[in-house]
Amino acid sequence: MHMAGTHLVVEMSGCDPLMLGDAVRVRAALLSAADAGRAHVLNVFVHQFHPTGVSGIVALEESHLSIHTWPERAYAAVDVYTCGDHPLPYLAMRVLSQQLHAQHTHVREIRRGIEQRAGCYVSEAVGESDIS
Amino acid sequence: MHMAGTHLVVEMSGCDPLMLGDAVRVRAALLSAADAGRAHVLNVFVHQFHPTGVSGIVALEESHLSIHTWPERAYAAVDVYTCGDHPLPYLAMRVLSQQLHAQHTHVREIRRGIEQRAGCYVSEAVGESDIS
Repeated sequence: MHMAGTHLVVEMSGCDPLMLGDAVRVRAALLSAADAGRAHVLNVFVHQFHPTGVSGIVALEESHLSIHTWPERAYAAVDVYTCGDHPLPYLAMRVLSQQLHAQHTHVREIRRGIEQRAGCYVSEAVGESDIS
Repeated sequence: MHMAGTHLVVEMSGCDPLMLGDAVRVRAALLSAADAGRAHVLNVFVHQFHPTGVSGIVALEESHLSIHTWPERAYAAVDVYTCGDHPLPYLAMRVLSQQLHAQHTHVREIRRGIEQRAGCYVSEAVGESDIS
């Protein structure tokens, strides 16, 4: 796979707490998002916390997609990290945001694996945006 | 678990290519790192790419730890994301860096789940550092 990648660090607020608390629905939302991003799923792991909260991690051929939810805050921390240079991580993020009924989404975009000098790689901050 | 978390976005360069290309050794390094960070492992998934490269994702009670490797570049993209407010993600990162024999490590620290206003969460960039 291409080395340099796009990593979206995403905070989703005002989500549907029932969705965020349900491992089965979170799993379905993650798979929809991966599909929208035309990513290839290698593995899915979803964990139901007690009394509440879900963690879900999808290993992709293109890297990974993860979510950690706090239903009592209607908040989810999401990461979409895909290798290669295309807009698909944003598509995956939007589908996940829609499925969780997020009212506000904060996105921090980071480029991974940038060769600063021969054999030495860094990440670069691309910017931040808010989607309401 | 605590909501706000520390996310280290890490680029490791000059690593041992034999380590980076071996799923069994990457798995062992990830588990050592999680242990050093006193994190509680829920699940481990490791995938061997062909002809080369490994992806590994460890689901933690405290969030997750992931790696994607490019042995031909001696490079690995690492994420250490742990909830709560303690120095343990740095311990986990250092152990992983040592195990992979990284010559240079670039770290970008991000705080997740910061309440900007009532019910609206964002991430914050804490800073960048280089470890040689």
